[in-house]
Amino acid sequence: MIIVLKPGASHAEIEDISRRIQAMGYRPHVSSGEARTVIGAIGDDRGKERLAALESLECVEKVVRILQPFKLASREVHPDNTTFQVDHVTIGGRRVVVMAGPCSVESRDQLMAVATGARAAGAVILRGGAFKPRTSPYTFQGLEEEGLKLLAEARKRTGLPVVTEVLEPQKVELVAEYADILQIGARNIQNFSLLKRVAECGKPVLLKRGMATSVQEFLLSAEYILSGGNPNVMLCERGIRTFETSTRFTLDLNAVPVLKKLSHLPVVVDPSHGTGHWEYVAPMAKAAVACGADGLIIEVHNKPEEALSDGPQSLKPDRFAQLMSELRTLAEAVGRTI
Amino acid sequence: MIIVLKPGASHAEIEDISRRIQAMGYRPHVSSGEARTVIGAIGDDRGKERLAALESLECVEKVVRILQPFKLASREVHPDNTTFQVDHVTIGGRRVVVMAGPCSVESRDQLMAVATGARAAGAVILRGGAFKPRTSPYTFQGLEEEGLKLLAEARKRTGLPVVTEVLEPQKVELVAEYADILQIGARNIQNFSLLKRVAECGKPVLLKRGMATSVQEFLLSAEYILSGGNPNVMLCERGIRTFETSTRFTLDLNAVPVLKKLSHLPVVVDPSHGTGHWEYVAPMAKAAVACGADGLIIEVHNKPEEALSDGPQSLKPDRFAQLMSELRTLAEAVGRTI
Amino acid sequence: MIIVLKPGASHAEIEDISRRIQAMGYRPHVSSGEARTVIGAIGDDRGKERLAALESLECVEKVVRILQPFKLASREVHPDNTTFQVDHVTIGGRRVVVMAGPCSVESRDQLMAVATGARAAGAVILRGGAFKPRTSPYTFQGLEEEGLKLLAEARKRTGLPVVTEVLEPQKVELVAEYADILQIGARNIQNFSLLKRVAECGKPVLLKRGMATSVQEFLLSAEYILSGGNPNVMLCERGIRTFETSTRFTLDLNAVPVLKKLSHLPVVVDPSHGTGHWEYVAPMAKAAVACGADGLIIEVHNKPEEALSDGPQSLKPDRFAQLMSELRTLAEAVGRTI
Amino acid sequence: MIIVLKPGASHAEIEDISRRIQAMGYRPHVSSGEARTVIGAIGDDRGKERLAALESLECVEKVVRILQPFKLASREVHPDNTTFQVDHVTIGGRRVVVMAGPCSVESRDQLMAVATGARAAGAVILRGGAFKPRTSPYTFQGLEEEGLKLLAEARKRTGLPVVTEVLEPQKVELVAEYADILQIGARNIQNFSLLKRVAECGKPVLLKRGMATSVQEFLLSAEYILSGGNPNVMLCERGIRTFETSTRFTLDLNAVPVLKKLSHLPVVVDPSHGTGHWEYVAPMAKAAVACGADGLIIEVHNKPEEALSDGPQSLKPDRFAQLMSELRTLAEAVGRTI
Repeated sequence: MIIVLKPGASHAEIEDISRRIQAMGYRPHVSSGEARTVIGAIGDDRGKERLAALESLECVEKVVRILQPFKLASREVHPDNTTFQVDHVTIGGRRVVVMAGPCSVESRDQLMAVATGARAAGAVILRGGAFKPRTSPYTFQGLEEEGLKLLAEARKRTGLPVVTEVLEPQKVELVAEYADILQIGARNIQNFSLLKRVAECGKPVLLKRGMATSVQEFLLSAEYILSGGNPNVMLCERGIRTFETSTRFTLDLNAVPVLKKLSHLPVVVDPSHGTGHWEYVAPMAKAAVACGADGLIIEVHNKPEEALSDGPQSLKPDRFAQLMSELRTLAEAVGRTI
Repeated sequence: MIIVLKPGASHAEIEDISRRIQAMGYRPHVSSGEARTVIGAIGDDRGKERLAALESLECVEKVVRILQPFKLASREVHPDNTTFQVDHVTIGGRRVVVMAGPCSVESRDQLMAVATGARAAGAVILRGGAFKPRTSPYTFQGLEEEGLKLLAEARKRTGLPVVTEVLEPQKVELVAEYADILQIGARNIQNFSLLKRVAECGKPVLLKRGMATSVQEFLLSAEYILSGGNPNVMLCERGIRTFETSTRFTLDLNAVPVLKKLSHLPVVVDPSHGTGHWEYVAPMAKAAVACGADGLIIEVHNKPEEALSDGPQSLKPDRFAQLMSELRTLAEAVGRTI
Repeated sequence: MIIVLKPGASHAEIEDISRRIQAMGYRPHVSSGEARTVIGAIGDDRGKERLAALESLECVEKVVRILQPFKLASREVHPDNTTFQVDHVTIGGRRVVVMAGPCSVESRDQLMAVATGARAAGAVILRGGAFKPRTSPYTFQGLEEEGLKLLAEARKRTGLPVVTEVLEPQKVELVAEYADILQIGARNIQNFSLLKRVAECGKPVLLKRGMATSVQEFLLSAEYILSGGNPNVMLCERGIRTFETSTRFTLDLNAVPVLKKLSHLPVVVDPSHGTGHWEYVAPMAKAAVACGADGLIIEVHNKPEEALSDGPQSLKPDRFAQLMSELRTLAEAVGRTI
Repeated sequence: MIIVLKPGASHAEIEDISRRIQAMGYRPHVSSGEARTVIGAIGDDRGKERLAALESLECVEKVVRILQPFKLASREVHPDNTTFQVDHVTIGGRRVVVMAGPCSVESRDQLMAVATGARAAGAVILRGGAFKPRTSPYTFQGLEEEGLKLLAEARKRTGLPVVTEVLEPQKVELVAEYADILQIGARNIQNFSLLKRVAECGKPVLLKRGMATSVQEFLLSAEYILSGGNPNVMLCERGIRTFETSTRFTLDLNAVPVLKKLSHLPVVVDPSHGTGHWEYVAPMAKAAVACGADGLIIEVHNKPEEALSDGPQSLKPDRFAQLMSELRTLAEAVGRTI
């Protein structure tokens, strides 16, 4: 951290701040420029947050962070890409992993129809929500445990491992019984109790960026899981909130190369939630693969116009199959497979 | 809802959509303009979300919502302001309720010093965090139950009712044992499991807007609590995320008159988190009272430069006392007291 | 500026960068921490932008700015508030200056009705657009010079000085013939040719913040006018663009104390454009005065429902009079007059 | 447009509004639901903006737009893609058009080095700024006419047509003398005087989206040029402003499929300004091609670390050549060439 003093800071003030820095366990390094004195705080990073409190002193103009606050998630301490297995599927490898399925599990018929269609088209992981975080209390909240059972049945039938969302710490154990990958949704990106619990659980995690989560905060949320002892985390970009309303969210593909640069964790993209309209899912899925995504998660529904949630952004199975075929050619062109 | 068809929609398509609308329990009302046919869906609102799925049909251009999706939170069904009691304090009345205290409970000495100072200056509710949602896993996470006990002790000593944050459903009972008001933090605004649990608990709730939560979503989160049987909800504006970086968040005071127009619930403003800098707390607190806020929640710390969290935005007790004195004059000028 | 090197930067790289810093006229100051080497560039600020280009070197992680890039607009070089006269009106003094009038000048009848009403209610400056920047080419574009003549006539009749917008460099002279204050609209905040021309013209300027303009960029735009020789600049906050849609823009009142801290220039607030709905104009106008605004600019129209532009956000004259009366009490409570 | 009335609107109010709608030249169509009465205004679209003013009536809740406000830019009235020639280069065809060159023209040596490198790598249009819109008045403002002459010289030497920015209406003629394509920069997207002048000029236009410009406003700015008689407009996405700071702007690639759906105009992407860091230019350029962009505009500089503007986001010629080679394979995979 660098503490920038206000112009005219006195000698006594500089000494006072240096002493405080030392008391917190850092080595102060004073540098006096023409317009400002700045004091660097050199030393171990953990807990450097406390240095930020110096900003409340009258003589301090601002406190500037130099280092990224995450460690285990950082490529600096772990230069190679992380890869891990989910059943027979390798996450983070050369193959771009496609997860597909309905937004919500609605019925056995619906799920089996979509799952077999998705599998036939080349998806290697099945998605489907049993516990649904819904903005309104008056809308469909998911089939809950019944939905989990249907997912397990679909896995048995198709051989596809299952990713599904868990909404609260007390349900982690239950969901982990049925799921191969635990999904933390965008609304829970800073639900730290939940992050700690999925860390303990040990199952692979698909961590979705929140709609107002900076890349730095995103990696700090991953850090909660990694530092809790679970190294198998995928980062999922799913759209951020901006002023633009022609898409439901603004899928921030810039985050793909940024995350790949800062972190070693696999990066997945969700063009369905990111855009909110099925017509934009295919072009954005292609763009995601082109800029380096390690995976895609795509909503597929056999009757989107009757879906109990997120119908407008779901692809019909035939459109999904068409997209998969186009993605195959594209992936090859960027040195990947699908 | 209004379903706008693409130009050139055929008679058969119009009939098909009308049938679907009817099947969902609404009455279709077709209106053919020069450029577009639009079909209104008339009827009970609950579940109207399902109509949105029609957007996935090829012949549909978009589905436009006409009514607000919340009910119990709406002024339309509850024209009078909601007021309720917390101990001897009336929330939502003529008096602007000031809650003050440290970001985190750090020690008995710290809490008692701040609590007695806050009380002397005119605060009527004590705030203080025992369970802290922290962006980084490496920073202070709160004193937890020990912190709750100190809060209870401070209440006994000062007579001030206590508001403190609860982070997970399983802890609602524990926190409710010690607290007079349960705070739902910005990061949990769409933690629906938590909302449902505080609804059941019945204690008054301070519900903070998330950093990317629209006013409509904010009121839908309140609706979770109200429809769960707990009518005592305060809405708290605490800053949204925008491109501007000179403040930590952008305190959105526009939300005060907007919420007062749309809803009957009391509205509280948090200028400390909203701005992130103590120098801006006083002007924004005054602005909040001027535009109609029913309460303020302000961070006060006896040694902000040593605070374990949010030091830069905390007021020292003497500055808080000065602000309270200025707020008193101001409140009177807008027909309120403090 | 501080140049932060990547971990493992070699001695040769540190020397190379130090040499480059020296070649650009600054003194390098190397500080080696445990995790990073940082090099300060000490010296005169002008042109420090060029140091930013060092970020393109492989060994550089980032370049961090320490000083604000504006000078003449800064309170650091000009500690006292700027005040200036527009006719008999003092801008930036104890009196909060209220400017009122229609969005567009539409006709003599309309303008005279509004101007006399605004004056009677206590406005001291008349606003009105003759050249209108309209998002769509198919909407009313203003009466142009005819509008300017009507404004001059209204000034003659009411004694109120006139503020009106100028859209392009070639029209500065023409508009300055009729107007007492030149308004630069939000869409022209970075129209640097226009800024340079109004600097030369010398007439007082009302500079509106753009909808995506940071406070720093706002003050740099003011710096164009100040450094061009015109010291009489008012800064006007008029709403920024965020994800929230319940207001047309998000009036960012935080900018008022931020601007007052960083700069000596008078700060004006436009609650009409900032919110886009007449119902929110009064509360936000009050909030603006409470947090330290030196002026308000408010749209008033005798028949808002027939206005050729911005009807929904215009106050009728009687509502404006009511607001002025409330503002008078409020201003007194914060040590100002109106 | 649809006018939504407040609950309890009286018969007289419904009649009054219907009369007003008729007076403005539209046919009212009343539809009474259980909770609201809505009135459609049917008829020619031009000037429908005026209907928005009805929102200021007490009995009106809101006015909802049904149709997009642009026409000539719309795919609805012009179903086929627009293509046009710039010298021997076809814009909007199967070939993805790559424009490359320095941010600013700095010297003959710099420009010729970059231009010949860009050409050798496969760029077909040369970019370079002679008039530079700079945030600070203290930074390099461009070589102006001298820069234009150098661009013309580079065109002669390389055969590449030239795109360069024009900043003010009075300079359109001058810039058009030297340039093949006139660039309107992000800061001038709503500089309507400038848009009208480039419309008259008739030269092809590269129109950059502003940093807070919605897709709808973007197309309305294009509409200014089209309705002024100039059909040769390219739309350029170059990054919008969001809360995320790890990139300079947030390149909004979603805008590519959205614009291609709504409009027939060619769409170009600027990954250099969009991300602000050279390391992210290549992945985002690839993503742009994958999601359907018709062109790219990329900053190339022979010595980015000494660039007078935008060094951090400029590619060195060898990295640009490497990118072009990768783009060729990718373009083929999506049915395009480069």
